[in-house]
Amino acid sequence: MNERFKKQLDFIMEIDKMKNVFRRTVITGTLRQENDAEHSWHLALIAMVFYEYAYSPEVNLLRVIKMLLIHDIVEVYAGDTFAFDEARYRDKEEREREAADKIFGMLPDDQNKEYRELWEEFDAMQTPDSIYAAAADRFEPFMLNCHTQGHTWVLGSVTSDKVYKRLEQVKMGMPALWETIVSLIEENIEKGYIKRS
Amino acid sequence: MNERFKKQLDFIMEIDKMKNVFRRTVITGTLRQENDAEHSWHLALIAMVFYEYAYSPEVNLLRVIKMLLIHDIVEVYAGDTFAFDEARYRDKEEREREAADKIFGMLPDDQNKEYRELWEEFDAMQTPDSIYAAAADRFEPFMLNCHTQGHTWVLGSVTSDKVYKRLEQVKMGMPALWETIVSLIEENIEKGYIKRS
Repeated sequence: MNERFKKQLDFIMEIDKMKNVFRRTVITGTLRQENDAEHSWHLALIAMVFYEYAYSPEVNLLRVIKMLLIHDIVEVYAGDTFAFDEARYRDKEEREREAADKIFGMLPDDQNKEYRELWEEFDAMQTPDSIYAAAADRFEPFMLNCHTQGHTWVLGSVTSDKVYKRLEQVKMGMPALWETIVSLIEENIEKGYIKRS
Repeated sequence: MNERFKKQLDFIMEIDKMKNVFRRTVITGTLRQENDAEHSWHLALIAMVFYEYAYSPEVNLLRVIKMLLIHDIVEVYAGDTFAFDEARYRDKEEREREAADKIFGMLPDDQNKEYRELWEEFDAMQTPDSIYAAAADRFEPFMLNCHTQGHTWVLGSVTSDKVYKRLEQVKMGMPALWETIVSLIEENIEKGYIKRS
């Protein structure tokens, strides 16, 4: 087995750990916590199905999907940081940068560079691809919350201003969805799952 | 909410059930059974990382990844069919065709057609994209077995001829990997996880 292939294979097996990184969000049906691998799969499919709603014609679906498939991979070492946990957000960047060195560093140099750059681009949310990708990443847990009695909102006593702020990314990346988002937020405030701020 | 968007949204939520369709294969670490959503994510990443080993320059990575993301979606209704379960394989086709009508039929006509055709193309394994995609689909559970003391091989008393047959798809779609596959199969026969046929 040559060196290059060995590195790629080790990476492929290491990321199996994504299936054991659990998020706050729960899935429909069993209300089990969602893991990073299935979350990433769901986002990639959302990006596919909603591609016609991308805010810019420059959005490249292949790059978006690649981004979404790897966007949480650093969490195999850095763990998941709950979206509404402000304290843990403080050292998130440092924890994740170290994890990125380690996990993407397992790959041959060219792929390390490509994936690292995709991950950094996603995180910065400044390009058409990353703006659209981030919209999918905000949309999915929002919809799961809507279908699981506001699970993480109730858990964190989350207020409507924070939910609106978190979803601004959807307004930007998938503007056609915004009207629906707003009515779903208001519905969940009415139901008491989101606190009116 | 317009009709088209409502259909897409219902589909996006319905496929959340993929996270509760469990396969025979177990994941590394906890040895929990793998579900279809995380399996599909892993395959898409394998297709990305190993793209340089695709057997043909005609392989289109975006189409391959789309295929892999949806290739098991029919199982939300049809259930998983264990690769080495010959009895259940008999009515697999009919069960899955009905499930495909139902699940892809939730989408607007154009997307129903696109996804249905991708799924049928994957299943037939006759085109460059589907041959490469199927190689990823064979490779992942093989590697998980190699890292979990031959879990499904031991469970099904699987013989080496069947493992070799099942992996022919990798030989075809990712020929550069074949030498490694053969040595891993032989290693697992030596260890007693695969029965010599």
